[in-house]
Amino acid sequence: MYLSKLFIPITKDVPSEAKIKSHQLMIRTGMIKQSSAGIYSWLPLGFKVMKKIEQIVREEQNLIGAQEMLMPTIQSSEIWKESGRYDDYGEEMLRIKDRQGREMLYGPTNEELITDIFRSSLKSYKSLPQILYHIQWKFRDEMRPRFGVMRCREFFMKDAYSFDLSDAEAKKSYNKMFYSYIRTFNRLGLKAIPMAADTGPIGGDLSHEFIILAETGESQIFADKQIFEIDLNQYELTEQSLNKMRRDFSSIYAVTDEKFKEEDFAKNVKKENQIRTKGIEVGHIFYFGDKYSKPLNGLIDSHGGKKVAVKMGSYGIGVSRLVGAAIEANYKNDVMKWPKSISPFDVVIITSMGKNSNENLKKAEKIYKELKKQNIDVLLDDVDENMSNKFKKHDLIGIPYQVILGSKSDGDKIEFKELNFESEMLNLESIKSKLKKD
Amino acid sequence: MYLSKLFIPITKDVPSEAKIKSHQLMIRTGMIKQSSAGIYSWLPLGFKVMKKIEQIVREEQNLIGAQEMLMPTIQSSEIWKESGRYDDYGEEMLRIKDRQGREMLYGPTNEELITDIFRSSLKSYKSLPQILYHIQWKFRDEMRPRFGVMRCREFFMKDAYSFDLSDAEAKKSYNKMFYSYIRTFNRLGLKAIPMAADTGPIGGDLSHEFIILAETGESQIFADKQIFEIDLNQYELTEQSLNKMRRDFSSIYAVTDEKFKEEDFAKNVKKENQIRTKGIEVGHIFYFGDKYSKPLNGLIDSHGGKKVAVKMGSYGIGVSRLVGAAIEANYKNDVMKWPKSISPFDVVIITSMGKNSNENLKKAEKIYKELKKQNIDVLLDDVDENMSNKFKKHDLIGIPYQVILGSKSDGDKIEFKELNFESEMLNLESIKSKLKKD
Repeated sequence: MYLSKLFIPITKDVPSEAKIKSHQLMIRTGMIKQSSAGIYSWLPLGFKVMKKIEQIVREEQNLIGAQEMLMPTIQSSEIWKESGRYDDYGEEMLRIKDRQGREMLYGPTNEELITDIFRSSLKSYKSLPQILYHIQWKFRDEMRPRFGVMRCREFFMKDAYSFDLSDAEAKKSYNKMFYSYIRTFNRLGLKAIPMAADTGPIGGDLSHEFIILAETGESQIFADKQIFEIDLNQYELTEQSLNKMRRDFSSIYAVTDEKFKEEDFAKNVKKENQIRTKGIEVGHIFYFGDKYSKPLNGLIDSHGGKKVAVKMGSYGIGVSRLVGAAIEANYKNDVMKWPKSISPFDVVIITSMGKNSNENLKKAEKIYKELKKQNIDVLLDDVDENMSNKFKKHDLIGIPYQVILGSKSDGDKIEFKELNFESEMLNLESIKSKLKKD
Repeated sequence: MYLSKLFIPITKDVPSEAKIKSHQLMIRTGMIKQSSAGIYSWLPLGFKVMKKIEQIVREEQNLIGAQEMLMPTIQSSEIWKESGRYDDYGEEMLRIKDRQGREMLYGPTNEELITDIFRSSLKSYKSLPQILYHIQWKFRDEMRPRFGVMRCREFFMKDAYSFDLSDAEAKKSYNKMFYSYIRTFNRLGLKAIPMAADTGPIGGDLSHEFIILAETGESQIFADKQIFEIDLNQYELTEQSLNKMRRDFSSIYAVTDEKFKEEDFAKNVKKENQIRTKGIEVGHIFYFGDKYSKPLNGLIDSHGGKKVAVKMGSYGIGVSRLVGAAIEANYKNDVMKWPKSISPFDVVIITSMGKNSNENLKKAEKIYKELKKQNIDVLLDDVDENMSNKFKKHDLIGIPYQVILGSKSDGDKIEFKELNFESEMLNLESIKSKLKKD
């Protein structure tokens, strides 16, 4: 893609509501545009990042045997009345009357609808376990939407639902998802730590929030610093390894504020290990047994033929929020550097468009074609602008690798730079191998 | 994927509302489940097909230089008041009040919102041409939703928007999209013919509907049969070839009912070439110039510095509807056969689970692994059910190729069948090469 063709409305006008750096950066680099309070359009640059995150989330859900499907955004109020949450949910639920006067709503979550699908589809324990997920837009009518995509009203979420015959089986599904989340955030280049959490309006008795540390986060956390030292790569998708994983995390104190008790913290964590800080919730998993299957009659024939309410859990990842969270975690000292796995482009060719512009541009186009052939996604900056402005701009756009065609380029050697490192002079073959996908 | 693990609620209970064969088949094979009138969940089998269609649409949009982005589902009423369509749109528009009492709506289309994004992003003719598209859920509150996903309320649509400086330039964008549509439907295995159409509520003076013939279609069409004989593979993405393409199609009479005039038909089409039939609209493209850019102030600096309203077109493809349309086109004599490009799986291994079940299943699993290694997406039918039921079931599920492990399998030779053809005995290597992706 040539930058001059890319629909990327870069701007210096950041509205005063943009208080946090991810919100500011996303507006400045034309990743998003607000259309109403808390409702955004994703422009091509932002869209590319979100799609990459979505795909990693998808692959890691598929890996544990979860099956993808898709529920609609608009739901009937009926099933919410069955579960009893229609009145409880309050004004955050966007309530709608259709032309026939039927009470509808824009789904803020999908426990009811998935239970309805399950109850009319499966009847026997032989079909269990099942994990279903979808990646779909949700709406929560926040009183004060803020922080850009971090707390917006229309947001993109992966939500998964597990169905098991017994508590013991259900815990296995929970552990698989726990493992999937660790892998997912790892691949996104984020250090997200599972913290014991309250179950809130979803209900149930077991819950973890996956949290990345950030001063701008809205979650208060209390943890033993040892939890950040667990080697996340040691676990495998076997029952034994997953049990060890859960034991490892449970044995170290790490909770969100609702679960926090000063005396527990003092008793369980050495003074010098105590961390009190803020974080961003990027995932939340719940086990709630028959909380929804019971009122909604999600029954299954057990081994003996007796009908029992299926045991369920639900598992969310905020896909659109993760774009903002990744910026909060990686935008430092006025330089944004995307993790390789979710960068909008693999590399940018920054071309000086001065006196020798024609020659530089030709060279740039040759390199562009060579890299494209290797299946490398390249942005070519052919905009007529001085190099110092270009560098400032690309410090914000955040593509981690740069090929620089300015005054320095000389013979076969081309200036190559990884953001936050010194540049080096390399030939094209070396650049190709540096950019090769893992 | 093992069929016993797949979430696929196959049923014989088809509700009486399901009048057309695509609707019936999608319910019977557990592709979709209705949650409210005209609102469906896409279960894993249906979801896989829809995703494949979406991906082909995406690739063909990218090929002509269109850039993907994503607009939200919920829009403010303000921009619709600016364009004048807020009152015009009637009850099909799902109107919503948020908790602050603001008038919002669920987007039925996006001309207003994209114009708003454009006007605040680009200022100069130098940034043109631009084509932006998104693939997003829309809502139209149909009075009588029917025919399953063919006329539902919440539906998945690709809509693209082009921006040009002049009518002449805009026609080039229109032609590119025309070409993209021909390629798209071709890859989907559908014979979709562009017919001159009325512009309806979108407005403008140039419009084509892409229509596939089907008795259950809701579009009435009148055409010279020669239009079905145009070789769709002859065109290229060059201005000259695209002009020829448009001339070829314009020179043969083919219109929808709103454009139909009996005397024109009689004058232009020989009696024996006259076709009067029904079809399904799968795509619709419009050129409407400054119909939206003028009231919404979508202005651009032209060469001379004068501000002119940007010239726009819009281009829709019904992605969710195409799933139904593909069934209408390919479900014949009680056998559904998916085109290879959008089949939910590449091949199914149908295993007899009778007396020798263990041996058959082992053999099936070995073949399954071998095919998976070749990146072939295999469904293994390990359900405990007799072969005759299995065949009936797979006649509906519609995977075009079958490996049959029943009584006939013998030594190295395995029974292999393409739907609607006789089966043959092949070794595994030959089967692999038959299934190799094009």
